[in-house]
Amino acid sequence: MPDLQHVFAYVDAHRDEFLARLFAYLRQPSISAHKHGIGETAEHARGLLERAGLGGSRVVPTAGGPMVMAERLAAPGKPTVLIYGHYDVQPPDPLELWESPPFEPTIRGGKIYARGVGDNKGQHLAHILAIESLLASQAELPCNVKFLLEGEEEIGSPQMPPFVAAHREELRADLCVISDGTVDESGKACVRFGVRGVLSFELRARGAKRDLHSGHWGDVAPNPIWTLVQLLATMKGPDGRVLIEGFYDSVEPQTELEKQALALMEGDPEGIKRELGIDAFAPHPGGGVAERRSAWPAFTINGLHGGYGGAGSKTVLPCEAFAKCDIRMVERQSADEVWAKLRAHVARHAPSVELIRQGSMDPSKTPLDSPYAAPIQRALALTEGEEPMLHPAMGGSLPEYAFTKTLGIPCFGVPLANADEANHAPNENMEVERFFRGIKTAAAVLVELGQMRP
Amino acid sequence: MPDLQHVFAYVDAHRDEFLARLFAYLRQPSISAHKHGIGETAEHARGLLERAGLGGSRVVPTAGGPMVMAERLAAPGKPTVLIYGHYDVQPPDPLELWESPPFEPTIRGGKIYARGVGDNKGQHLAHILAIESLLASQAELPCNVKFLLEGEEEIGSPQMPPFVAAHREELRADLCVISDGTVDESGKACVRFGVRGVLSFELRARGAKRDLHSGHWGDVAPNPIWTLVQLLATMKGPDGRVLIEGFYDSVEPQTELEKQALALMEGDPEGIKRELGIDAFAPHPGGGVAERRSAWPAFTINGLHGGYGGAGSKTVLPCEAFAKCDIRMVERQSADEVWAKLRAHVARHAPSVELIRQGSMDPSKTPLDSPYAAPIQRALALTEGEEPMLHPAMGGSLPEYAFTKTLGIPCFGVPLANADEANHAPNENMEVERFFRGIKTAAAVLVELGQMRP
Repeated sequence: MPDLQHVFAYVDAHRDEFLARLFAYLRQPSISAHKHGIGETAEHARGLLERAGLGGSRVVPTAGGPMVMAERLAAPGKPTVLIYGHYDVQPPDPLELWESPPFEPTIRGGKIYARGVGDNKGQHLAHILAIESLLASQAELPCNVKFLLEGEEEIGSPQMPPFVAAHREELRADLCVISDGTVDESGKACVRFGVRGVLSFELRARGAKRDLHSGHWGDVAPNPIWTLVQLLATMKGPDGRVLIEGFYDSVEPQTELEKQALALMEGDPEGIKRELGIDAFAPHPGGGVAERRSAWPAFTINGLHGGYGGAGSKTVLPCEAFAKCDIRMVERQSADEVWAKLRAHVARHAPSVELIRQGSMDPSKTPLDSPYAAPIQRALALTEGEEPMLHPAMGGSLPEYAFTKTLGIPCFGVPLANADEANHAPNENMEVERFFRGIKTAAAVLVELGQMRP
Repeated sequence: MPDLQHVFAYVDAHRDEFLARLFAYLRQPSISAHKHGIGETAEHARGLLERAGLGGSRVVPTAGGPMVMAERLAAPGKPTVLIYGHYDVQPPDPLELWESPPFEPTIRGGKIYARGVGDNKGQHLAHILAIESLLASQAELPCNVKFLLEGEEEIGSPQMPPFVAAHREELRADLCVISDGTVDESGKACVRFGVRGVLSFELRARGAKRDLHSGHWGDVAPNPIWTLVQLLATMKGPDGRVLIEGFYDSVEPQTELEKQALALMEGDPEGIKRELGIDAFAPHPGGGVAERRSAWPAFTINGLHGGYGGAGSKTVLPCEAFAKCDIRMVERQSADEVWAKLRAHVARHAPSVELIRQGSMDPSKTPLDSPYAAPIQRALALTEGEEPMLHPAMGGSLPEYAFTKTLGIPCFGVPLANADEANHAPNENMEVERFFRGIKTAAAVLVELGQMRP
């Protein structure tokens, strides 16, 4: 593959320059939760796309943070790849735990430390720099390419579904590639075919109009904590099975390929227990750790609060309590469908309890035998020197359903960051060599896709 | 009953003096929770007993707040009555809600406002002043009398059981009379034959060694809130029945007399709902409000806390949670017995959950047909002008089991305070006329008991 040798050589020859471009991008704070620096960073990102040789680079306003778009569609008959990333970052708090300032990128021990280096500036910049490296080495890109960078991923991507739906034509592509998150915990590269969805909600129970004395009113006035306990107990059994009626109905069984991939993902359960400091895993109707995280929905109580929480005891019957929960969904559950079942369940079992819907994202999954999977795997094998692992889905959530469901195209996760990138935490980092290898991988992906038979 | 006419006339003639004595007692703060003024108030109470004509008045040290004792045993062949009260009071917080300072007694609208006036200084002082009024009107008391005033009732009477057990001979009596709490909510006087016991405890659950991301670890690492929810759901059913194995085994069925009394106590359930601001009572396997409060145990979650409690949502899997609970027990349950059943239940259903015992008091009940009941009822009928109600038990807890179980004597509650005394709350109060009528009632009780046939 002589083309790629030139590209890789270009990347190697421009390390200092590319690093400088990454550092300048990282120095620009873009904290969506605080609406800080979003507009400036969108413009900065647009400039990066333009400089790489992409056309029509533009900042597109939305009801929230703007989208940044650009494309190069000069490879007729070749696949069109939509590359998604996000230029916003998590707040850097707690600041005092950072060893170097979050918006002053610093290299220590072969890693670049900065907020957003892995999540996600360094990862989508690798794709942008791959375009520049390809164009420096050959006349034209091997595929058609569209970029979509959003500015509110860290606050749940609220603009993504309506934006993608409204710009269906503009975003039309054959597949989507997303570099976010990390390689496998073993350090091996992976291709991720899906994400779980998430639906957050709150349950609020009320008792009497004021706190009461437990001796006088216990088991006479309703206790909102007991109300929540009894309701929650109807929603999940002691074996961990979710008992909301019809909850598992639309869960798509794993394919044989997915089962094989999951089996290969199962690491060392005893090691995981040690790492987490637990004696046993949570009760669960399913199987191993990877299977639970990828192939099963999960129902987590994020918090439950009511009544006395101080030292010692207090004989109080509290008047209110609430539980905050999230449900992770797998293909083909949907947030609207689970919400409807949840509402019906609460109405049937505890009609006095208020149910409040919070944010949601639908799950997404691309078949492991998609025709675009093999070229992407080959690209990773080339730059990584070994076959990538296949992850049917990750436990967390990303707005990939906007691509797979709204646009109807397959979506591939090609994470470039090291497993200990500490995203969302202090001292977020990305290994220097993974950044450069990421540029090469991004170029190789386009070259491999360009060689597909039409 | 010519004797009592003289006594009542003496009370009427000494209203100002008696009120002054009450006010001086109320001005003396005695907050056991803060160990504030306990020693001084014990000495003050001893002086009140001495001045009333009781012998051997003494302050007896314990490992906690001292006991104050005195007696007059000059009625051979007559019953010996042990009169119990407590000279400590609740903390006055929140101070800003008091309309007059808590330790500066003030009369407004026919009520004395001061911390401790109803709970319990005004009530046991009525008994002390009854002794003085009787001795001023006749040569000798109609009964033998012993006083025991403690200084830690508001923090759970931890010294009472060991003290009573160690002073069994000194405290030997035929019956115990306690004036604490309030008359019936209707305003009618009542005789209370029992109290429920209480056992407070805490459940602590732990998950991983740190908070985790719900997308990555939900339903993989144990969720301590789910652990508590599942455990608590095994302890009480949706119908309100406590499911701890053997929990109801030792509950003594209500006698016919008790059933009749409970039926008369049932007030206006709709009015109670309105007062509490509830649409329905808590699920319960038993009957009406009075029956629930007197004849059934109750299991209250006082507080449950774990995980995120802020605004919006947070996809966190928390690492710890706790529940604080109290169980109210009825005759013949005991705190040790319920504790043993609780421990066995938690060990069986959630062995990883830590169970921490906090304070407890056993229940107590005296038969409604005790031979001492009729004279006490007659005394109340005389001073109140109507037959008192009979309360088999109140929902709250008092250390009466030290008398009924350790000393083996019947124990009668003769509450003198108005139903809206606001004990434990700001603006605690006692109606002026109830204080004076209380002195007369206390005298009448001794006269009636003195007229019993041996």
